[in-house]
Amino acid sequence: MNIAFIGLGNMGAPMAHNLLKAGHRLVVFDVVQTHVDALTSHGAIAATSPKAAAAATELVITMLPSSPHVREVYLSDDGVLAGVAPGVTLVDSSTIDPHTAREVAVAAHKKGNPMADAPVSGGTGGAQAGTLTFMVGATVEIFDSIKPVLAQMGKNIVHCGAAGNGQVAKICNNLLLGISMLGVAEAMNLGVALGMEARVLAGVINTSSGRCWSSDTYNPYPGVIENAPASRDYSGGFGTDLMLKDLGLATEAAKQVKQTVVLGALAQQLYQMSSAQGAGLKDFSSIINLFRKTS
Amino acid sequence: MNIAFIGLGNMGAPMAHNLLKAGHRLVVFDVVQTHVDALTSHGAIAATSPKAAAAATELVITMLPSSPHVREVYLSDDGVLAGVAPGVTLVDSSTIDPHTAREVAVAAHKKGNPMADAPVSGGTGGAQAGTLTFMVGATVEIFDSIKPVLAQMGKNIVHCGAAGNGQVAKICNNLLLGISMLGVAEAMNLGVALGMEARVLAGVINTSSGRCWSSDTYNPYPGVIENAPASRDYSGGFGTDLMLKDLGLATEAAKQVKQTVVLGALAQQLYQMSSAQGAGLKDFSSIINLFRKTS
Amino acid sequence: MNIAFIGLGNMGAPMAHNLLKAGHRLVVFDVVQTHVDALTSHGAIAATSPKAAAAATELVITMLPSSPHVREVYLSDDGVLAGVAPGVTLVDSSTIDPHTAREVAVAAHKKGNPMADAPVSGGTGGAQAGTLTFMVGATVEIFDSIKPVLAQMGKNIVHCGAAGNGQVAKICNNLLLGISMLGVAEAMNLGVALGMEARVLAGVINTSSGRCWSSDTYNPYPGVIENAPASRDYSGGFGTDLMLKDLGLATEAAKQVKQTVVLGALAQQLYQMSSAQGAGLKDFSSIINLFRKTS
Amino acid sequence: MNIAFIGLGNMGAPMAHNLLKAGHRLVVFDVVQTHVDALTSHGAIAATSPKAAAAATELVITMLPSSPHVREVYLSDDGVLAGVAPGVTLVDSSTIDPHTAREVAVAAHKKGNPMADAPVSGGTGGAQAGTLTFMVGATVEIFDSIKPVLAQMGKNIVHCGAAGNGQVAKICNNLLLGISMLGVAEAMNLGVALGMEARVLAGVINTSSGRCWSSDTYNPYPGVIENAPASRDYSGGFGTDLMLKDLGLATEAAKQVKQTVVLGALAQQLYQMSSAQGAGLKDFSSIINLFRKTS
Repeated sequence: MNIAFIGLGNMGAPMAHNLLKAGHRLVVFDVVQTHVDALTSHGAIAATSPKAAAAATELVITMLPSSPHVREVYLSDDGVLAGVAPGVTLVDSSTIDPHTAREVAVAAHKKGNPMADAPVSGGTGGAQAGTLTFMVGATVEIFDSIKPVLAQMGKNIVHCGAAGNGQVAKICNNLLLGISMLGVAEAMNLGVALGMEARVLAGVINTSSGRCWSSDTYNPYPGVIENAPASRDYSGGFGTDLMLKDLGLATEAAKQVKQTVVLGALAQQLYQMSSAQGAGLKDFSSIINLFRKTS
Repeated sequence: MNIAFIGLGNMGAPMAHNLLKAGHRLVVFDVVQTHVDALTSHGAIAATSPKAAAAATELVITMLPSSPHVREVYLSDDGVLAGVAPGVTLVDSSTIDPHTAREVAVAAHKKGNPMADAPVSGGTGGAQAGTLTFMVGATVEIFDSIKPVLAQMGKNIVHCGAAGNGQVAKICNNLLLGISMLGVAEAMNLGVALGMEARVLAGVINTSSGRCWSSDTYNPYPGVIENAPASRDYSGGFGTDLMLKDLGLATEAAKQVKQTVVLGALAQQLYQMSSAQGAGLKDFSSIINLFRKTS
Repeated sequence: MNIAFIGLGNMGAPMAHNLLKAGHRLVVFDVVQTHVDALTSHGAIAATSPKAAAAATELVITMLPSSPHVREVYLSDDGVLAGVAPGVTLVDSSTIDPHTAREVAVAAHKKGNPMADAPVSGGTGGAQAGTLTFMVGATVEIFDSIKPVLAQMGKNIVHCGAAGNGQVAKICNNLLLGISMLGVAEAMNLGVALGMEARVLAGVINTSSGRCWSSDTYNPYPGVIENAPASRDYSGGFGTDLMLKDLGLATEAAKQVKQTVVLGALAQQLYQMSSAQGAGLKDFSSIINLFRKTS
Repeated sequence: MNIAFIGLGNMGAPMAHNLLKAGHRLVVFDVVQTHVDALTSHGAIAATSPKAAAAATELVITMLPSSPHVREVYLSDDGVLAGVAPGVTLVDSSTIDPHTAREVAVAAHKKGNPMADAPVSGGTGGAQAGTLTFMVGATVEIFDSIKPVLAQMGKNIVHCGAAGNGQVAKICNNLLLGISMLGVAEAMNLGVALGMEARVLAGVINTSSGRCWSSDTYNPYPGVIENAPASRDYSGGFGTDLMLKDLGLATEAAKQVKQTVVLGALAQQLYQMSSAQGAGLKDFSSIINLFRKTS
């Protein structure tokens, strides 16, 4: 296929590489020239704007840092909608607020372009390995039409309902994830402070009602899970500042629909505190250190 | 075996019945006469005090509501330690604070009696079906010696380390459980408020990093899990007031060892609020209603 | 003076009336025709747009519900900046986020118009009585030039520093107010639950280190302060939904500058919960009922 | 008068000195010999036990660290009630839970001894200067009878109602104080982060609805109040660990009467976190540093 890929950062670059490997022709755009060069050296074609990239392609994929970037890339005079041919499907894999996702989808629809929001989970590791999970908000028809291409970048392609619901699924999952990790951190710290061995406690929890991904797969207590960030000083993984961004999206979306999210709001503040105390670039499971004695 | 069983309430009674069915001779005690009658009508022998019950038995099991009851039943003039023969093993299945559990175990040890704390999870349903999980704090020798009898009342007998660690495991697991349930409640409510279908959202979460027992087995949103309390108006299950008791034990234990449990303390307050608003006897997953619009 | 007044709602209308009474010539605009009529019947002149209202006046005052309205009224093609003569001072008394306030001030400055943000406290009662407090963000020169007019609508005109700082002062004060009120609510409820008389407890607090406006002037416990909303079933006063709006502004501003506001975020959620349970239009001190037993 | 004074620590010692200065005959007891020596060198008479101290005196005053100490000093075989003559009034100035205060008062009453709980505020400075506030729980008769002596150690003697209510007033006030200080810390930090000068912000707050003792008298932002601990690196004042103790009493008392104290519970956790990060002995207003960027 002839695909436009816009946004070639930590996530976008390996995703684009996987599409090149799968044999697609890629026209790429990024505001950082070195990002573009890294792709053109592998056969991608550089475009001078999102508008130019989108012209004469059969599918447009974007992977951008935040809502304002998405608005700019799709809706500005030099944007995708200004260049793309009617009927071409648009896929935004950025993690942004559902409201913006829906607004852009409506604008695309008016121009005759089907659009899906398809944020991912799995991190840079999953992007490189092609094992991402895509949470897709779109009609069944759009979902079916893009699934094969998404499957070349990920292994779990989930239909979440209409436009915007990919974003909803993503922020709701990560809201829960941020809370669960804090819960595991508190439970592990408390158990150890009360005299229990961390591995034994994790073993009990993982076969009981406290069982969760944050405990059995990504336990924040060092030494419990061999391959978890906690066992390598919280390097790699999913950064505290990224969790903070997603909790910001979740609490903001909650505010707009007047939904109470008490633990979510508190979790946001605690990751903010952890970031301010220096853990912004460490894995988010380092939140456990916020509760440690440091003197 | 010749077993003393003290405390014949909602949990103790079915546990004692299972021991009778297994062929043991039971000497029982409870302060409520009708509780005693319900067991003697099935062949148990009534005793007039914990001291009397413990005399001439080979094993003592207790199932009591709170720490003061445990102190009273073991340490008073009419208590177990005043009547039991040296060498007889004592098993307390009450859920109490680890500090008290350890104090009573030390007192038992001084009298020459091995002691284990063995709180359970699984609720009255598990007690009746004999499928409880026992979290046992004791030496390996004591654990090995009582495991066969516990296995007649439960199917998962877990060794958690030395005396008191059964209680530690129980309160740490339930601390995490109380937090996870709140996290799922917030995530499900938010997703639905943002336009997603509850079952679809749960499906995404259950295959993602938000996966947890509170979502995949006991989801608080009505209709998501057929057999969960949420699908029968939160009747049955594990009551809000019981969760509140366990969170009280967890936060109190945290205070004593100067361990921060921020979400745990907030969770305790929210279940307290839910209880004050009338949900004390409903399943604890009814906490989801605290965040619903009621006007 | 020849003044344009834009935004004639619950707050703007009485403020405009006070300017009319003071003898000014008023050109007014509002999107709701009845709001306009209520002023023109007292001598104000109706304009067809913010642009038209601002033309040929010596001072522009706006009182609008939220940031998007402020952007629209000042920056759109029909907006104030499109019609106002260079050199005319602009005063926005809306409560909005400091970021927007500063952006609009910068845009005004580029057009040659001095601008001040001047949000108020004192509610509709203070607006009618002309006893509002104005928190003004502007240079000393601008502040001095507008102070006489503001003094015709309020009695406390405070200079808070440069553009935007009026908003900062407002949201920081109300952040603290929202927290203090919750603190008083919890302390009063607890004291009464522990057997103390509410008036006696308030008396102790008001002469001790817990002393605060929420306790000594606006106590949320019924019967403690004769004229407080608590003594008239929380009618009148400063509505829960208005406090919720201000806490939303404060937590959002905190997010943008990466400042932790833990109690602020929790307070926002609790007022949200109170609003969802039906108290949105009641005075915000009705938050005390969130902690009452209702069954 | 012939007075027994038991408990001669940081608070008790200066209080006892003030009674000596007022001309009373003092019989003193403390478990630390150097504490006793410091008083006997000024004319007090040492006793060998609380029982011995209480014998042959006309009034007993105690100042002890916690509830277990109070139980021990009053109720043990060597305790006050074992030695004191019927009719002698007992005054406990310790800060403890209201439940224990009431239990000990009942025990004293049964022995024929009127008893008052009279916890203080004002810190070691107030104890030395004789300017403490006493919050007294007792009948009017008892209150009137002890007021003259208390007035020799303090300047504000407040009657809070029946036995236990002195403790209730103390913990409710300090619950609110702990919350208010956090609110001021968040508001000040936010205002400064948003570009406002700290003194100007405090000035606005102190004349607005955010006004409180924590802002106008004890502001946690350095440089705002000349004599506040914040202006001397948080030395002196009321230590974080003492605030933590009082919040522990308040949340525990709330649990017993099933009263929700959401911000109170969160405040306790935040002071716990601050203590664990090294600020336990610093003034409690140093909580503001918990929210500062440290990297």
